[in-house]
Order: sequence, then C-alpha cells, then structure tokens
Amino acid sequence: TSFEYVRKFEDVGDVCLPSTYIVVRLDGRGFTKFTKAHDLVKPNDKRALDLMNRCGVAVMEEFGEIALGYGQSDEFSFVFRRDAVVFKRRKAKILSLLVSLFSSAYVFHWATFFPQTLLQGPPQFDARIVLYPTDKSMRDYFRWRQADCHINNLFNTAFWALVHQGARTPAEAEAELSGTLSQDKHEIMFSSFGINYNNEPAQFRKGSVLRRVMHPVPIPSAVRAEEEAVAKVSATSDASEKHASASDLGRSPPAKKTRLKRVIRVFHEDIIQDTFWEEVLGKDA
Amino acid sequence: TSFEYVRKFEDVGDVCLPSTYIVVRLDGRGFTKFTKAHDLVKPNDKRALDLMNRCGVAVMEEFGEIALGYGQSDEFSFVFRRDAVVFKRRKAKILSLLVSLFSSAYVFHWATFFPQTLLQGPPQFDARIVLYPTDKSMRDYFRWRQADCHINNLFNTAFWALVHQGARTPAEAEAELSGTLSQDKHEIMFSSFGINYNNEPAQFRKGSVLRRVMHPVPIPSAVRAEEEAVAKVSATSDASEKHASASDLGRSPPAKKTRLKRVIRVFHEDIIQDTFWEEVLGKDA
Amino acid sequence: TSFEYVRKFEDVGDVCLPSTYIVVRLDGRGFTKFTKAHDLVKPNDKRALDLMNRCGVAVMEEFGEIALGYGQSDEFSFVFRRDAVVFKRRKAKILSLLVSLFSSAYVFHWATFFPQTLLQGPPQFDARIVLYPTDKSMRDYFRWRQADCHINNLFNTAFWALVHQGARTPAEAEAELSGTLSQDKHEIMFSSFGINYNNEPAQFRKGSVLRRVMHPVPIPSAVRAEEEAVAKVSATSDASEKHASASDLGRSPPAKKTRLKRVIRVFHEDIIQDTFWEEVLGKDA
Amino acid sequence: TSFEYVRKFEDVGDVCLPSTYIVVRLDGRGFTKFTKAHDLVKPNDKRALDLMNRCGVAVMEEFGEIALGYGQSDEFSFVFRRDAVVFKRRKAKILSLLVSLFSSAYVFHWATFFPQTLLQGPPQFDARIVLYPTDKSMRDYFRWRQADCHINNLFNTAFWALVHQGARTPAEAEAELSGTLSQDKHEIMFSSFGINYNNEPAQFRKGSVLRRVMHPVPIPSAVRAEEEAVAKVSATSDASEKHASASDLGRSPPAKKTRLKRVIRVFHEDIIQDTFWEEVLGKDA
Ligand SMILES: Nc1nc2c(ncn2[C@H]2C[C@H](O)[C@@H](COP(=O)(O)OP(=O)(O)OP(=O)(O)O)O2)c(=O)[nH]1
Ligand SMILES: Nc1nc2c(ncn2[C@H]2C[C@H](O)[C@@H](COP(=O)(O)OP(=O)(O)OP(=O)(O)O)O2)c(=O)[nH]1
Ligand SMILES: Nc1nc2c(ncn2[C@H]2C[C@H](O)[C@@H](COP(=O)(O)OP(=O)(O)OP(=O)(O)O)O2)c(=O)[nH]1
Ligand SMILES: Nc1nc2c(ncn2[C@H]2C[C@H](O)[C@@H](COP(=O)(O)OP(=O)(O)OP(=O)(O)O)O2)c(=O)[nH]1
Ligand SMILES: O=P(O)(O)OP(=O)(O)OP(=O)(O)O
Ligand SMILES: O=P(O)(O)OP(=O)(O)OP(=O)(O)O
Ligand SMILES: O=P(O)(O)OP(=O)(O)OP(=O)(O)O
Ligand SMILES: O=P(O)(O)OP(=O)(O)OP(=O)(O)O
Ligand SMILES: [Mg+2]
Ligand SMILES: [Mg+2]
Ligand SMILES: [Mg+2]
Ligand SMILES: [Mg+2]
Ligand SMILES: [Mg+2]
Ligand SMILES: [Mg+2]
Ligand SMILES: [Mg+2]
Ligand SMILES: [Mg+2]
Ligand SMILES: [Mg+2]
Ligand SMILES: [Mg+2]
Ligand SMILES: [Mg+2]
Ligand SMILES: [Mg+2]
Repeated sequence: TSFEYVRKFEDVGDVCLPSTYIVVRLDGRGFTKFTKAHDLVKPNDKRALDLMNRCGVAVMEEFGEIALGYGQSDEFSFVFRRDAVVFKRRKAKILSLLVSLFSSAYVFHWATFFPQTLLQGPPQFDARIVLYPTDKSMRDYFRWRQADCHINNLFNTAFWALVHQGARTPAEAEAELSGTLSQDKHEIMFSSFGINYNNEPAQFRKGSVLRRVMHPVPIPSAVRAEEEAVAKVSATSDASEKHASASDLGRSPPAKKTRLKRVIRVFHEDIIQDTFWEEVLGKDA
Repeated sequence: TSFEYVRKFEDVGDVCLPSTYIVVRLDGRGFTKFTKAHDLVKPNDKRALDLMNRCGVAVMEEFGEIALGYGQSDEFSFVFRRDAVVFKRRKAKILSLLVSLFSSAYVFHWATFFPQTLLQGPPQFDARIVLYPTDKSMRDYFRWRQADCHINNLFNTAFWALVHQGARTPAEAEAELSGTLSQDKHEIMFSSFGINYNNEPAQFRKGSVLRRVMHPVPIPSAVRAEEEAVAKVSATSDASEKHASASDLGRSPPAKKTRLKRVIRVFHEDIIQDTFWEEVLGKDA
Repeated sequence: TSFEYVRKFEDVGDVCLPSTYIVVRLDGRGFTKFTKAHDLVKPNDKRALDLMNRCGVAVMEEFGEIALGYGQSDEFSFVFRRDAVVFKRRKAKILSLLVSLFSSAYVFHWATFFPQTLLQGPPQFDARIVLYPTDKSMRDYFRWRQADCHINNLFNTAFWALVHQGARTPAEAEAELSGTLSQDKHEIMFSSFGINYNNEPAQFRKGSVLRRVMHPVPIPSAVRAEEEAVAKVSATSDASEKHASASDLGRSPPAKKTRLKRVIRVFHEDIIQDTFWEEVLGKDA
Repeated sequence: TSFEYVRKFEDVGDVCLPSTYIVVRLDGRGFTKFTKAHDLVKPNDKRALDLMNRCGVAVMEEFGEIALGYGQSDEFSFVFRRDAVVFKRRKAKILSLLVSLFSSAYVFHWATFFPQTLLQGPPQFDARIVLYPTDKSMRDYFRWRQADCHINNLFNTAFWALVHQGARTPAEAEAELSGTLSQDKHEIMFSSFGINYNNEPAQFRKGSVLRRVMHPVPIPSAVRAEEEAVAKVSATSDASEKHASASDLGRSPPAKKTRLKRVIRVFHEDIIQDTFWEEVLGKDA
C-alpha cells in the first residue's frame, strides 16, 4: 500500500552492541501498594518470592541464551551471554518479549502460589536493558543488586521485628534505626528479640540465583512439565543455604535409568565472591 | 556501595524526541500456533478480538495521554499525544510498562472471554516504539494498519469460505485465490457462497478503534468498574457499523441524574478518512 | 579477510528520524583564547565574522539541501529541509563532513580575510545535530540563536564602550553593567558616549542569515567561482540593514544578457518575525 | 529567553558506553578526484602520507587519551583508552572536534609537505565512531585496516608497475590482475620488472602506526614545536622497516643534558602480531 513508507520511521539502530553482556532488569510497578492490597507477609512473603522465581524460570526456559537470573523483592535481573544472537540483539524485541512473558506468567501462576488470595488486577513490571562490556562490570552489576538485597532486608527485618515483636509504631521503629550501622541492627535484633539475622532464610538474605545445571532425569519422564517447574521452585527454595550446591539441590529420588538434562535451578548463595563466577562462566570469562 | 558505578552504564539517552507522536505497536508472538492451540474460530474469533480490546482499554485507562488505540488480529497500536510527558518520555519505561500491562491483562481477563477454554500457558507480545514527527505520517501509520486489516481479512474470509463452504483443501483455496484482485475475491465469495463481504461484521473488516468519548453516567454509579469495562467491550463490539457513531454507541438507558464522564469506547469505523482525524485530533492537529 | 566482522560494531541506527528538520550547530573551540591570540577587534571583528560567513557559504554550496544558515560570534547553524536525503540522513556522515569542510575552509580562506595576520595553528570547531519535528520548534531554534546574539552583543558593546571610551577597567565595566536591563544598557551607551545602539552595524546586532536567492548573472560568466564567492561575502556584509532585502542585496551592474542563478546571499535581518519564515519556507511550512 | 526550550531537543544520550574502546576512523571524501587534481604520485605519494601523519600527530597531541593512531591511504584511525573521559565521552563532541582538527591541520600543513603544489580547495573528511567492548575486537579492527592496506597496496603496486613500466593501458592491467592471488602479483612484479615487493617502503606496505614513546630531549629545547613536529614526521617515515624500533627512530643528535619526554612517533610495523599489542597496551590489556 501507499502507506508503507511509515515503516521507515522505525528505529533500525535499536540493537545491542555486539560482544557485550545484555542485562535486563524488571521491577514491579507500585508494589508498595500491590503488596499491601494483597496482604503479603512483611517484610518477606515466601509465596511472592517463589512466584517471582517461577516467572524467572519461565523466562530462562524461553530464552536459552540467558546465563543467569537473579531475583529479590519485586525485581528480577537476567544476563545474556556475550555471544547471544537472540532476535539479532534487537533491544525492543528482547525487552518487550521478556517483560511480556514475565508479566503474563505472573498472572498465570498466581493461583498456584496464592491459592487463597484473589488477584485484584493485572500487575505491571517495568524493564530496562543495560549493556556491560567487561566481565568485571557485569559481575559488579549482580553484586550491586545482591548488596541492595542485603541492605534492604537487614533494615526491613530489624524494622518489622521492632514493630511486630517490639510493639513500636512504624515511626518509632524508623527513628530507632535511623543512623545505625549494620552491626547495630544485628545487635538490636539479637539483644531485644533473640533473632540471629544469619539464621534468617537465605532466600530472604541473599535473594534467588537462577542457574542452569545438569540434572539426572528418569527415562522416560512421566512428569508433566508444569508440575515439574512448580516443584522445582518449591523444592529448591526450601533448601537451607548450608547444603546449597549445584549437585545437592533439587535431588530426585534415585532412578534406575537416568539421563542428564539441562534444567534451571534456584540457589540462595553468595553472588559476590569470585568463586561463584568462575563456576558459572568458566575460568576465562 | 562500591558497585554503584554500574548504573552509569544505563542508557540515559533512551528518550523520545520531544513533540513527536509516540506510537507503540504490540503483536502476539507465535499466535499462528497460539490460536490453533486454543481452537479459535477461523478466520476471526470475536472472543479473541474482544479480549484484545479489553486489554487495550486497560492500557488506555492506565496511560491517560494515549489519544487513540487501534487493534486488529493479534496486534494493537496506541498513539500518545505530541505533548505527552509520560515517564519523561523514557522509551524503555513506556515500552515495558505498556506491554507488561497488556500481557498481564490478557491472562487476567482470559476467563471472562473464554469461559470454556483453559489458557495453556503465558502468552507473549512483542512491542516497539515508533516516533512520528508529522500529523500526516502518524495518520498514515494508522491507515497502514487498517489497510493491512482489510487486505488480510478479505483474503482470509474468501479463503475460509472456500475451505469451509466450498470444500476445498487449504492448498486448493490458496491456489484459487493466488493472483486475484480485491474485486475478484468479492466476486468469488458472492457468486459461489452468496457472501456479501460488505455485510461481514465491521469489527472484522475494519478492526477496532479505541477512543475517549464523553458519556453520561448516573450518579452515583453503583456499577463496579470491572463489570462496566467488560460490558463496554461486549456492547460496543456488537454494534453494527451502520449506527456506529460516537453519540450512538454505548448508549445507556436514560438516567434521572447523570454527569458526563470521559470513557473509552470501541468503534469499528473508517480510520482512513480525513474526517475521522479532524474529529479525533481537532481541525488544526 | 577474517577481521571483517569488526564492521558489525558500527552503529547502523545512527540516522536522523525521517521528516524532521536536521539542524547542525558548529562552535569554535576555545575562541576566547583564539581571538585574543590573533588580536581580533573587540567586541566584533568584521573580518572574523566575514570569514565565518565565507565558510558558511562553502558549506551551503556543498550541501544543496540546506535551507538556511545563521552565524554569529564563533558559531554557525544550518538547517536541512525536512525531506533531505543527504547521506541517507546518516548522522555521523552529515556531522563530520559538514564540520570538516567548515574547518578546512576556515584555514583555506583565512589569508583572504586576514592578509596581515598569520594563522597560528589549526582551529577546531565542535558540532552537533539537533532534530526538530515541528515548524515552530525549528523556527524557535533560530530565534533562540538570534536572541542570544542580541543579548551578548548589547552587553559586549556597552562593556567595551565603558572600557575603550569610558576608561573603565574590565572589572569596573562588569560591575557597572551588572543587573542592568536592556534599556539601561542603551541609556548608558547613549548618554555617556553618544552611541545609538540601533545604529551599530546590523551584522553585529542581528548576526548573518545565509539564504539561497535567485540572482541575475551575465552570460557567459567570466568570473572565477572563488573570486565571486569572496566578493559576495564582502558585498553583502557591507549592506546596511535599511536596504537589506532579497532583491536589493548583491545587486550587480546591469548586464545585457543575464540568466537567473540560484546563489547564496548573506543578510542581516530579523529572523524572529513570522514574515521571515513565510518568505523562506513558504506559507504552509 | 522563551525560546530556550529548544535545547531539550538535543540528544542527551549521545554518549559512548563506559569501558569500551572508542575508535574514530576518518576518510578523505572523494580523494580519487582530489589526488588526481593535485597530481599525486601513483600509487603512493609519500608527501601526502606524511601530511596525513602530521595531522594524526596533531590529533594525538590534542587528545591525550588516544592510545594509538593508524593511517593508510586517505584514512586515519584512532583508539581512545577504555577509561577515557574525554568530553564525558559525548559522541558528537569527540567526533566533530577530532575531524575538525584533522581537517584544518591538513590545510594548515599542506604547504610544508607540498611546497610546489597549490591546494585547490578545502578538503573534507568523513568520520565515524565505533565502540569495541573487547580487547580482541579492538585489535582485530586495526588488523582489518592493515590487511586492507596490504591488499590494496599489493594490487596498486602491481597495477601501476604494469602501466608505468609494462606499458599496459589501465584496462589491460586490470584484466591481467583480475583473479590473481597474492603470490601471483608478487611473481608478476618480480619476473617482469624485477620488483621485490617486500623491498617496497614499509610506509606503503604497512601503513603508519602512531605511538607515544619516551624520548630524550635536550634541556632547554630551543627547537620550536612546529619545526620539531615536521622533522619528526619526515625523519621517521624515512626509516626503513629493518631498524624501525621505538628507541632507534627519530634519533636526535646526542645532547649533554637530556630529559625523557613523552612524544608521538611514527612506525611502519606489523600491527597484526600479538607482540605489538602486548607492548602497546600492556600484557593484561
Ligand atoms: N510485604 C511485602 N512487601 C514486599 C515484598 N517484596 C517487595 N515488597 C514491597 C516492598 C517495597 O515497598 C516494594 C518494592 O520497592 P520498589 O522500590 O520497587 O517500589 P515500588 O514497586 O512501590 O515503586 P516502583 O513503581 O518500583 O517505583 O515492594 C514482600 O515479600 N512482602
Ligand atoms: N483463528 C484465528 N486466528 C487468528 C485470529 N487473529 C489472529 N490470528 C492468527 C492469524 C495469524 O496466523 C496470526 C497473526 O499473524 P502474525 O503475523 O502476527 O504471526 P505470528 O503471531 O504467528 O508470528 P509473530 O510471532 O508475530 O511473528 O494470528 C483469530 O481471530 N482467529
Ligand atoms: N574579539 C572578538 N572576540 C570574539 C569575536 N567573536 C567571538 N569572539 C569570542 C568571544 C567569546 O570569548 C568567544 C565565543 O564564546 P564561546 O562561548 O564559544 O567560548 P569559547 O569558544 O571560548 O569556548 P568553547 O570552546 O566554545 O566552550 O569568542 C569577535 O568578533 N571579536
Ligand atoms: N595517487 C594517489 N592516490 C591516493 C593516495 N592515497 C590515496 N589515494 C587515492 C586512491 C583512492 O582513489 C582514494 C581513496 O579511496 P576511497 O575508497 O577513500 O575513495 P574516495 O576517497 O574517492 O571516495 P570516498 O569519498 O571515500 O567514498 O584515494 C596516494 O598516495 N596517491
Ligand atoms: O525505581 P527506583 O527508585 O529504585 O530507582 P530506579 O529504578 O533507578 O529509577 P527508575 O525506575 O526511574 O529508573
Ligand atoms: O512480524 P512481521 O513478519 O509481520 O513483520 P515485522 O513485525 O515488521 O517484523 P519484526 O517483528 O521482526 O519487526
Ligand atoms: O558551550 P556553551 O557553554 O555555550 O554551552 P553548550 O554549547 O550548550 O555546552 P556544550 O558545548 O558542552 O554542549
Ligand atoms: O567508503 P567505502 O566504500 O570504503 O566503504 P564504507 O566507508 O564502509 O562506506 P561508508 O563510507 O558509506 O560508511
Ligand atoms: Mg525503578
Ligand atoms: Mg517496584
Ligand atoms: Mg523494586
Ligand atoms: Mg513482527
Ligand atoms: Mg503475531
Ligand atoms: Mg500480527
Ligand atoms: Mg559549547
Ligand atoms: Mg566557542
Ligand atoms: Mg560560541
Ligand atoms: Mg567510506
Ligand atoms: Mg576516501
Ligand atoms: Mg579511503
């Protein structure tokens, strides 16, 4: 048709620089209100975090070049390999499809994780693409998100302990924590409420790392994909940090005949150490 | 933290040129497969189109600066006013939140439009932003999409008439239509099957135009927002083209006390005529 | 060769949005120092301004789709027509070639305008591209530059009158003008030094507008292109504002046989009035 | 003023991704014609190449974060260090100022290298920025340009030998070389004209590499900067490849009192070997 010239206005340059790491971060819009409206447990609602992880798994199942996912609070980050060719590295395609899938998965799986709570309306997630040209900057990106998780969760745990167990008003709790250092918050929780912060669930303290690992599966697998995925999330998020290792986690009952299958597993480990990265990306990454 | 420098890698220039029309187009990913998997009516499934419109309404309720929406097949387009300041015109914010809402709304409202059909998995929509600097190019964009709707629908209607009513195989129907002009297709449908294409539902032939109109509502409104929105979509999409006009459509029963409220209405009209645009955007737009 | 993959890193999206006005602004780097080092007359050195105009003419002769140029101080702006296809609208090509030509022309023509002053080193100009989607914003761009010219020149003229004729130190002149309004500066110049600012050369007060006009030339033209261009700049910049009009300016001695040729002329007129734009771009622009 | 809003249309996102190598390549516009118009020696005119190098030196003296320059034919490439902060990494600033300086230096220094040839008009260079995120891709960029130099120069040398010494017409020479491999061209030149291609000047075969080296200078230096720079270019480009090394090149007469100064030197060496890069960028680069 004679209108087709309007296609020329599309942005052809909307592509990711080759050989860079493509990081996508999603974040729930207005989840302060959303979490209140659905009565989520404060400060951490395991169901909500597991649902986020379920959506993260859906994304990584769809986008095979994602090397790693990391979720905490109402946000999720994914990093594509340097050599990813997904949609010819077109930014709008990657951004829109990834956030679209995450969002529709959130509604789709809601009832599995919140069987008693009606979803009140369609949630929204914003998303952005950030390119990292060096290994160091890409790793530091994830360290930054995990440090953010740690700082917020330490504060929130102390805050809600003061409110729930210490009978402070929110304003009083706020004032009491204002200006305190990390060690002060540990101290307040321990001395006042006997809470050893380090014994809090690793999922809350460290966030969730989604990795691809080799996993023995029975032949033939009779388990339906959906059940498997849900089970995966629940199983792994129960695992306490102590035995969290790629081989340990998601252990299945011994099967006579098994083959190795690449699956996505959820870990709650320390993303900040170099050893983590060497294992995930290989020594020379 | 010492990792915060990684924020500097975010793309600060990711903004829409001021004073341009911001057009966002969404399109279902792999809907050829999706529509088969859910047994949609061929070539047009009114339930699917109404669901798309429902999501379009959700988007326009959330983003008040959208002047117009247009949906057909598995796609939807929206145009923001020239002076829109939504998210400071940041591209990634606009793109991701809009497609996120549309996608989660699609799952959220699925059961209303497909009460008998289980949704098999989370759908995906891609999305892109296109900027139009002139009134003409922006209008031609929508004319292009409606011309696309017309061409595809004319072909599809003839094709499925040949298959369903003419007992052709798809390959035979394809061959029979190959190389035919518009008038030939009209002729084939009319002479063989008594189908007057112009009497096919306007929703199928023209697509759906979402506009904001002033509508009298009773005071106080006892109707819940959700019911209202659903009703709106069903009501307007039933209206045959003949009486389709801004004042006619969505007529409510006379109420004693009413006030004018700005609501979103669905029309199936001709977007290609200048008169349409003068009405929507004002004479000098 | 096996190295050619490195071309894929080139930015393919580096193009100007279709149908927008492409404005390029150049500005001398460190010309505060450069003008001192070459002993330019303060605050306005006609030779320097004429040299800038000569370079502007060179640019407009090379880039035929430039509709208009505007120069003042150490800067020059050019606007390409909305439908310009120069280098397929590639930004880096347009930007680099335009500033490259302007810069080499500046050195090339230096001796013509500064026969007594040795150029001490290669000068530099920065350049940027700005896209304007509407007629209004494009026009306001030029109004902005001319308003800048006016404000700076009014201040500078008053400042150097106080220093040169009023025997103030620069610091004293600065202090005396601090906080004054336009009319105060007019008053100071008039009452103290008998300077009627409006009688200052229009070239200094208004800057230089470069336009394409039809000009009768004798057949055959024996004048060499270079001589012509230089003559053009000198001639037009002498013209006082009073008779500055497209038909008046650059009047040649009557020739027996002439034809109309499209040439570039320098004007010192008011760019801020609507009448200017109607004449340049046509009524409907 | 009320026009200042037009600044908002400037592209704020026009910055180079942090931590990438910023490569700028310049190329003479229409130099096929330019070189003919100025009667340059075919296929290589040492004066023209030395002039290009002189401009390259001017650029590297101005932009201290450039690690390396490489010139051949009518083109020049520069690479900024990964951590360069030049103009806050703004693309338009870097691109325009660099090409502006190169262009004005070309005219400024023309007469030094072409004392007998009048420059006929202001030359133009296009320029582009390419970002390289990895060491490998950045190095391969330069390998690509040197391989291009090699391939073109081998062809050109054989071609002009056939024309000048072999009395072929250009068309005959073209035909004779068509489809030949590298070794064939070597063979043709050697057997027909006794030319050992490897003995051709390294400057022609390898192009020119501009590096920063430490150089002993007498105290005080009485030499004027300009003379020094010109001498530098001539001296180094004379050096045959055999003794080309950082310490050898640009040897000055022994001075009683010297200090080490960072200067820019021209080399004609092999950029393709890893050893080169280790020396230039350091082992871990
Ligand atoms: N109760 C509860 N709240 C949570 C949980 N996870 C996240 N949230 C809440 C805490 C914060 O208010 C909010 C996340 O903070 P954000 O900075 O993303 O703010 P919010 O989403 O409100 O605004 P935004 O649209 O992202 O700017 O979500 C949870 O597990 N339980
Ligand atoms: N049966 C049926 N199919 C529909 C209806 N609306 C759209 N479709 C189908 C027809 C097309 O196969 C498909 C839309 O075409 P597209 O070009 O968007 O292709 P598709 O979504 O498969 O691929 P994509 O991921 O967009 O490249 O959706 C409907 O109402 N009924
Ligand atoms: N004496 C004299 N100076 C002039 C003339 N035209 C421009 N200038 C000087 C006045 C200003 O110091 C300078 C232009 O101001 P800019 O804001 O462009 O500053 P400058 O070029 O120094 O720095 P920049 O590199 O552009 O940021 O050039 C002239 O005709 N005569
Ligand atoms: N005679 C002679 N010609 C040279 C020398 N160095 C470069 N050239 C010529 C050979 C080529 O025709 C031209 C460089 O090729 P390009 O691909 O850059 O083409 P050209 O500059 O004509 O077009 P362009 O505007 O860059 O697309 O310059 C030289 O030393 N001597
Ligand atoms: O959303 P915030 O406040 O945590 O900070 P941000 O995500 O960097 O801000 P934005 O969402 O506006 O990019
Ligand atoms: O999706 P298509 O094939 O209709 O065409 P397109 O949408 O222009 O292609 P893409 O989705 O790849 O931009
Ligand atoms: O150069 P200035 O100070 O007049 O202001 P600017 O040109 O807007 O600043 P920049 O040259 O840094 O874009
Ligand atoms: O100029 P060419 O033909 O050598 O090739 P190019 O430089 O890649 O083309 P362009 O200058 O158009 O980017
Ligand atoms: Mg945010
Ligand atoms: Mg949030
Ligand atoms: Mg958040
Ligand atoms: Mg598509
Ligand atoms: Mg589709
Ligand atoms: Mg489609
Ligand atoms: Mg500036
Ligand atoms: Mg300046
Ligand atoms: Mg200036
Ligand atoms: Mg080129
Ligand atoms: Mg060239
Ligand atoms: Mg070249």
